Amino acid sequence: MDPRIEEHAEVLVDWSARVDDSDDVVMRVGPDAHDLAVAVAEKVGERGANLVSTYASGELGRAYALAHGEGFEEDPDHELALYEHADVVLSVGGGRNTSEGSDVPAEIRRAQSKARQGVREARMDADWVSTVHPTRSLAQQANMSYEEYRNFAYDAILRDWERLADEMANMKEILDEGSEVRLVKEDTDLTMSIENRTAVNSAASVAYDSHNLPSGEVFTAPHATEGEVFFDVPMTIRGERVQDVHLAFEDGEVVDYGAGQNEQVVAEILETDEGSRRLGELGIGMNRGIDQFTDSILFDEKMGDTVHLALGRAYESNFPEGHEDEANDSAVHVDMITDVSEDSFMEVDGEVVQRNGTFRWEDGFEE
Amino acid sequence: MDPRIEEHAEVLVDWSARVDDSDDVVMRVGPDAHDLAVAVAEKVGERGANLVSTYASGELGRAYALAHGEGFEEDPDHELALYEHADVVLSVGGGRNTSEGSDVPAEIRRAQSKARQGVREARMDADWVSTVHPTRSLAQQANMSYEEYRNFAYDAILRDWERLADEMANMKEILDEGSEVRLVKEDTDLTMSIENRTAVNSAASVAYDSHNLPSGEVFTAPHATEGEVFFDVPMTIRGERVQDVHLAFEDGEVVDYGAGQNEQVVAEILETDEGSRRLGELGIGMNRGIDQFTDSILFDEKMGDTVHLALGRAYESNFPEGHEDEANDSAVHVDMITDVSEDSFMEVDGEVVQRNGTFRWEDGFEE
Repeated sequence: MDPRIEEHAEVLVDWSARVDDSDDVVMRVGPDAHDLAVAVAEKVGERGANLVSTYASGELGRAYALAHGEGFEEDPDHELALYEHADVVLSVGGGRNTSEGSDVPAEIRRAQSKARQGVREARMDADWVSTVHPTRSLAQQANMSYEEYRNFAYDAILRDWERLADEMANMKEILDEGSEVRLVKEDTDLTMSIENRTAVNSAASVAYDSHNLPSGEVFTAPHATEGEVFFDVPMTIRGERVQDVHLAFEDGEVVDYGAGQNEQVVAEILETDEGSRRLGELGIGMNRGIDQFTDSILFDEKMGDTVHLALGRAYESNFPEGHEDEANDSAVHVDMITDVSEDSFMEVDGEVVQRNGTFRWEDGFEE
Repeated sequence: MDPRIEEHAEVLVDWSARVDDSDDVVMRVGPDAHDLAVAVAEKVGERGANLVSTYASGELGRAYALAHGEGFEEDPDHELALYEHADVVLSVGGGRNTSEGSDVPAEIRRAQSKARQGVREARMDADWVSTVHPTRSLAQQANMSYEEYRNFAYDAILRDWERLADEMANMKEILDEGSEVRLVKEDTDLTMSIENRTAVNSAASVAYDSHNLPSGEVFTAPHATEGEVFFDVPMTIRGERVQDVHLAFEDGEVVDYGAGQNEQVVAEILETDEGSRRLGELGIGMNRGIDQFTDSILFDEKMGDTVHLALGRAYESNFPEGHEDEANDSAVHVDMITDVSEDSFMEVDGEVVQRNGTFRWEDGFEE
């Protein structure tokens, strides 16, 4: 067995989820994530925690959803109870086909997503962490050989997280002290308020309010968004390749949109509910262990030299006391990414913080 | 895909578990039972029920148990809550190695089993059904080719259950009216009381208080057992091959035992608790679709021309009102099988009911 599988499990259980004696842990296992799941189960056992593993199969989920059709019951008791009693939820993804959900009609997906809002909230009240086992299917999605992909994934995952957390603290400080962010690049001039928001130093650990492994981004919850933005990084959303998305905002809401490919996916997302037309997240990618796009949001949005915005649900962790009710609410949270490595800059309160990917505190930064 | 997989799913969901609109269903999926699990998910969706799937991997369970060691917490909240809120629990078994648990020390297995008694009871309060997807590992255990094994398994599973239920009703009637069963064959002369017990016509459906697919047995809960019994059918118990078990009973308790192979497994079982030294079940195999031993209890104990006895826990369904507290309680339920096809007879209240495998109501029966 690749010794990196065991290192991955250790980072997940100890650094990311901080699993403790007596914790009630739910692990969601993708069908091809078996080897990582076994290594994680071992670590969870060593820590003296309790484990329930669920089977997160795309084929199974598709068969169920298609046969069921719309009209889902809200938050089934047994599923809700499982997550309401969980201290830790580990999503250990790894399927066999990233397009498996592509022929489930949007109405069914939307109805199911809406009817599971309570379950999702219960899951997010726990110390949750999402990771993926590098699978052949993800390698294919990334247009890489399996060996190359594993090297890529472990470079992103097995980092010196403590050192990266220290570096990201610079960006968090700037955002916490600032009130307005402006992002400028090709077809993009977007202004967002970050007043009364707390940035999260997403260092791949619940101790930092960070829930992805790998992570390596600083994110906040923007509001009062004005202007336009262009996302040039291609992505697979809901099983569809979506490219060159364009959004125009007024008063914090999307008033116009377009896409170079699969525009109807963007339309679907925007139609979910009221919150899906507003931003829930502004994230700044700072994981330089990720050096190429692999068409997987978990990795792409963390890449150094990128910025991403999410339509939909905001994370509670961005809202200081007294401002919790300002969090954007939605059944969806869909990230879209823009490359800022060239011909771009980001300002906070009128001061340039990042230009062409280089941060203010780094060598080579040009004011 | 083998069309029998879909038939199997349909029998499981409709005939066996009677899954209904709005039922909260837990499906426990073995790693190699994926294809059957997908077919079952489709049927569960069609019926409008809610589904949570758990990942029942032997490798994962072993890694967790070995790393955890003894000292398990009693009935973890999240696991208990999941099953307490379940209406239906479907176990869709199918692993990759039937010996996977063989190097987990008995003390750990015992401690874990004891600490999950509440979870087990919650599971058994639901409409639970256990089945297996025919896997290569089960074919190997049966000493069969994969194709031969699939034919064997589907012959056992895809039966005319309604017709078999009618035939088994004969046996249930005899046991319900009788008070004492005597079993006689080589090294066997065992007498058991069945006074105040209700026999179950185990027709592979919760509607008959029957929880295995395949099934095809009539079973009751004997007590006041006296005499000796010899189990000549080899079995794998807890990953070990156990052969030629001999038990001697006095006053309902095992007072002496032996085995031709792996006697320590029998010793372990008997030492579990007080209830593990008493019988919890007497079962009469009546599924003639099963025509050979395959070293799998789910199939072997249902085979026509066999009788089995279980040490440990009795099933509630055998106890009529007012007698529930007489049910033998234990953390274990271990079945052992004896071949009654030759030189044997079974009496109920002194009258021969089965001789050399042939029942009283069948052609060729000799008084």
